[in-house]
Amino acid sequence: MTLSNAPAPRLPDFHIRPDPDDARLSEAVAGTDQDGRRVDLRVVSERALTLFLNAQEIVTMMTIGDRPDLLAVGYLINQNMLRPDDIITGIDHDEDLEIVVVRTERATDYEEKMKKKVRTSGCAQGTVFGDVMDRFDEIELAPDARIHTSWLYALTKKINTQPSLYLTAGAIHGCVLCQEDRAVAYMEDVGRHNAVDKIAGWMWLNNVPAADKIFYTTGRLTSEMVIKTAMMGIPILVSRSGFTAWGVELARKVGLTLIGRARGQRFVVLSGTERVVFDMDAKDAEPEESKHRRKGSKAMESNA
Amino acid sequence: MTLSNAPAPRLPDFHIRPDPDDARLSEAVAGTDQDGRRVDLRVVSERALTLFLNAQEIVTMMTIGDRPDLLAVGYLINQNMLRPDDIITGIDHDEDLEIVVVRTERATDYEEKMKKKVRTSGCAQGTVFGDVMDRFDEIELAPDARIHTSWLYALTKKINTQPSLYLTAGAIHGCVLCQEDRAVAYMEDVGRHNAVDKIAGWMWLNNVPAADKIFYTTGRLTSEMVIKTAMMGIPILVSRSGFTAWGVELARKVGLTLIGRARGQRFVVLSGTERVVFDMDAKDAEPEESKHRRKGSKAMESNA
Repeated sequence: MTLSNAPAPRLPDFHIRPDPDDARLSEAVAGTDQDGRRVDLRVVSERALTLFLNAQEIVTMMTIGDRPDLLAVGYLINQNMLRPDDIITGIDHDEDLEIVVVRTERATDYEEKMKKKVRTSGCAQGTVFGDVMDRFDEIELAPDARIHTSWLYALTKKINTQPSLYLTAGAIHGCVLCQEDRAVAYMEDVGRHNAVDKIAGWMWLNNVPAADKIFYTTGRLTSEMVIKTAMMGIPILVSRSGFTAWGVELARKVGLTLIGRARGQRFVVLSGTERVVFDMDAKDAEPEESKHRRKGSKAMESNA
Repeated sequence: MTLSNAPAPRLPDFHIRPDPDDARLSEAVAGTDQDGRRVDLRVVSERALTLFLNAQEIVTMMTIGDRPDLLAVGYLINQNMLRPDDIITGIDHDEDLEIVVVRTERATDYEEKMKKKVRTSGCAQGTVFGDVMDRFDEIELAPDARIHTSWLYALTKKINTQPSLYLTAGAIHGCVLCQEDRAVAYMEDVGRHNAVDKIAGWMWLNNVPAADKIFYTTGRLTSEMVIKTAMMGIPILVSRSGFTAWGVELARKVGLTLIGRARGQRFVVLSGTERVVFDMDAKDAEPEESKHRRKGSKAMESNA
């Protein structure tokens, strides 16, 4: 959230990533195809997870369930319920009870806050508490952050070809925290909001600086994605999907670089173009191979 | 919700549909493309709409704003806040104040209900109140309802080629209420949950029977989509996107026919196959033309 002068540590490609072989994350289902023949496919799992902050029940989420600790902490951060200086004294996850409890040194009470909720558009959060928008107006994003078009082309290719639950089972969202041309942290979940929250939780728990990062999402660039990315202090947001008007408006207001429809050799920048360094001719980028297209993948779904 | 013995009236194709030319629903935005050139595109609008049921504030939604009355009524129905026998005495929409008020003869109070919320996966509702699931267990879906594969092929083609905000601006979800091979009511919104709710509202206000209908969505077949479709009393749910495990489980439990990955000549049925009549060879169906593919459309986004 703060702009530090210390150089950010260099993180490797896929430092943290999906584990499509984790049997708990998808299951085999038998069905019937268009010719009346039996087909077997894998579908992603969804399980309930109820989040407590100290003694208070906050929310029940539906998640693939791979990283409950990161999801819990990220949710609280993105809802402004954890402060940057808060000290977490414990995170307890009970898989059978489907509960995760985050304990903090500071006594917390968000009864009033939770009464005021906004149902947001798109696939994102679903619910944003009223005071989140107040904080949005105070955000300052690193003006000297950059994204080279060569990084952008490299990132989209890496992310599309990395083994993932998307490629195994489809019908899932992915979010990736990137540094230059490296896809550092890749999270997936049924709801995009969960994937974002897991990245926020990972960053918070590992003190990962935000100002030099690029956030990639498979989903649309809605108001909510813009709000979350800016709240996390990340100055650049990239998606293979499109834009909504309010997403664009908020990105321009907060000075976030907003790049959409990023696929193969193409993209569109609708905000913060000054951070984009055109160092590679689009013609020299690789076209997106149909087998790596999200829609044309083995799984065949649009990632909607 | 009830299975009536009276024959359902025959409704025409696109009896109600999107108006992509409505200037309030999308706006022109200037950006920069991969070659550093200026591009102009249209992006869908999002506006806030706060819903009151009688004197009680229920929720603030982000919506494209085209059918606030249908959205309001549909939301209340799908949250189990309007009963089948409720009498609506007025629906007042104030565009400037961004408020819609639904008034009923019955006095309502959902203070307690609203305290218990579940954050759902996917792009759907985002919030389901606890007691919705209780009602789910009592649902009976018409066992004699059918979908012919010839209807399915006709429907997917009609829906993909119908002028829509998706084709104009992208980044939007569509839901369509169908009867046999006719796409009767087509609604779009930034959030799929809104598109579903608008259809529910339209059905309720026009006494449209559900048992002979087919519900088509561009989005994934998550638990929430299955719950909503079943709650609306519609026995067949179709999507061009994929499945989640809990969505499949709930569909099987409630006896809903669940058809996914329906594109061109292909589809997969994961529940309720007995309602599918294979009357047309998949080879004889038209392949999906790339220009009509959701992802390959002018707008280029995955509809995520």
